[in-house]
Amino acid sequence: MTESILIPSRDMKETFYNILISYGFDKSKADTCAEIFTANSIDGVYSHGVNRFGRFIEYLQKGYIKKDAEPTLIQSRNAIEHWDAQFGPGPLNALHATDRAMKLATDFGIGCVTLANNNHWMRAGYYGWKAAKAGFAFMSWTNTIGNMPAWNAVDPRLGNNPLVLAIPYQHEAIVLDMAMSQYSYGKMELAAMKNEQLPTAGGFNAEGFLSTDPQSIIDSRRFLPVGFWKGAGLSFLLDIFASLLSGGLPTHEVTSKKIEWSSQIFIAFELSHAHNYSSMAKVLEGMVKNYHESIPDSSGNKITYPGEHVLATRKKNLQNGIPVVKKVWDEILLLAKP
Amino acid sequence: MTESILIPSRDMKETFYNILISYGFDKSKADTCAEIFTANSIDGVYSHGVNRFGRFIEYLQKGYIKKDAEPTLIQSRNAIEHWDAQFGPGPLNALHATDRAMKLATDFGIGCVTLANNNHWMRAGYYGWKAAKAGFAFMSWTNTIGNMPAWNAVDPRLGNNPLVLAIPYQHEAIVLDMAMSQYSYGKMELAAMKNEQLPTAGGFNAEGFLSTDPQSIIDSRRFLPVGFWKGAGLSFLLDIFASLLSGGLPTHEVTSKKIEWSSQIFIAFELSHAHNYSSMAKVLEGMVKNYHESIPDSSGNKITYPGEHVLATRKKNLQNGIPVVKKVWDEILLLAKP
Repeated sequence: MTESILIPSRDMKETFYNILISYGFDKSKADTCAEIFTANSIDGVYSHGVNRFGRFIEYLQKGYIKKDAEPTLIQSRNAIEHWDAQFGPGPLNALHATDRAMKLATDFGIGCVTLANNNHWMRAGYYGWKAAKAGFAFMSWTNTIGNMPAWNAVDPRLGNNPLVLAIPYQHEAIVLDMAMSQYSYGKMELAAMKNEQLPTAGGFNAEGFLSTDPQSIIDSRRFLPVGFWKGAGLSFLLDIFASLLSGGLPTHEVTSKKIEWSSQIFIAFELSHAHNYSSMAKVLEGMVKNYHESIPDSSGNKITYPGEHVLATRKKNLQNGIPVVKKVWDEILLLAKP
Repeated sequence: MTESILIPSRDMKETFYNILISYGFDKSKADTCAEIFTANSIDGVYSHGVNRFGRFIEYLQKGYIKKDAEPTLIQSRNAIEHWDAQFGPGPLNALHATDRAMKLATDFGIGCVTLANNNHWMRAGYYGWKAAKAGFAFMSWTNTIGNMPAWNAVDPRLGNNPLVLAIPYQHEAIVLDMAMSQYSYGKMELAAMKNEQLPTAGGFNAEGFLSTDPQSIIDSRRFLPVGFWKGAGLSFLLDIFASLLSGGLPTHEVTSKKIEWSSQIFIAFELSHAHNYSSMAKVLEGMVKNYHESIPDSSGNKITYPGEHVLATRKKNLQNGIPVVKKVWDEILLLAKP
């Protein structure tokens, strides 16, 4: 087993912050960036938090991520704005786009921001939580490099194009953060490392059969789209919307760049001035109550709404510290530019 | 085998029109309604075209569908409008909402219409084709009665909540029209009738195992959400958005009404004034070309984008007539009010 250690969230954020400062980030940007990588880790999305921070720094060093680049407004058309992310830090650009979408929603009832040429935004859910906790209904998605095949095809030309839908709920939020592949590469890799089978088919093996064996799927590169042909179709449409509306790169061109210079869409809905605002909380509570009252199957697993487990993880990691593979943390501690 | 006949589309539309007139529909509404039911049949979606027309008339007679009801504007907030469908004919209300969303998009760049208390809109794809052929990018969804379980649950409390995304392509459109269940009830029923197995798991049997046997899934009522827990989560969020944003009924209340008085969202994106409009067609052609160049798997099935097969069916049905089960057509011919 790989040795894990627990890092208090404050220490993690400070470590990230200091490293970013050492690379010349300005203080405010370093703070926000460190905050996002830490929050993703607190929420249990380590693959786009602490485990990804090293690569973020590597991309910074290679010049893929331009630390001082600011998103630029290309065109404003009332409730929709088109921005170019200028290859700046992905999470900062995505957060800016989220903020702008909320501002537009405040002015127009609904607001949309499109973002071209953004670096990897890390985790869709972060922007969903952010917007929902600010009181907005929110949906957003990104395209990615090609990592799963079209239906009836074998080579990975579609992105897994994560999609987030979020809505305020009680003092928190209900947040769905789903990629269009049944399992993430990270989950598949972890299962392979542990010699475990996946709970459901995760792709096709080299012989073209649906398989629960993570290694044979990684080898064939035939990751399964959610709902087979349906998720493949949805992935393609999300890519079309993201790239055509933003004017940014479509998945097949992102793939050819090898790094994720992606196209993204952010849509916010203002709630507090809606005619039915006063009844929304009660309706949603009724929905969640009904959902939770579902008759459980024999698995013994809890019936949870999207984001419910995130709250539990967040609480635990804030209390106990964030579990990090020791080797990963040791490497991060060496990242600061001398 | 059930005997099928071929009905020319013009005859089908005229038949629907005359029946609607006999029930007191005004001419313009009868024409639009007949057009939608016929178009859905031409496109091969018989379940929400010719095969559903009888139930539409039944609901009209029972007063569930109020033929003269007009959608009412509840609230206008710049780029978003909230309408109440007043239990009028679902397809007419949905088409009206689509038109309004396009008008708002023309004025604000993006436009959204929410619709509460609508009868069944029949087929999501119709509105997608309509908007895309008018030059808009478009997304829309509805909630439905509960017809599939939450993940880890056995009783059907989630709707299959069809979602459509559409975009103009060449002289036609790319249109994804997907329900959140892996297979529709109609497809499952047909397979059971023909004693056929489903190509992939379509739900759980009474023993709680994933199954490709349609009858055992129909019996257990445990239809499979696309992508297992992911599609279940997406269904729940689509329901939350539709009902909270519109102020209409959430799925669990629609279910208790037994008829689909649903909540719907329509979002249109204006394209022709976008900064990158001149390059959109070329980018999309490149995407489709790349998609079509995927390496085929061993199934021998063609790699098609969403909506591509609809065009083929449409062409065939317009040329040869629309295939209808003879018994269904005979019953329709008896529907006209004496």
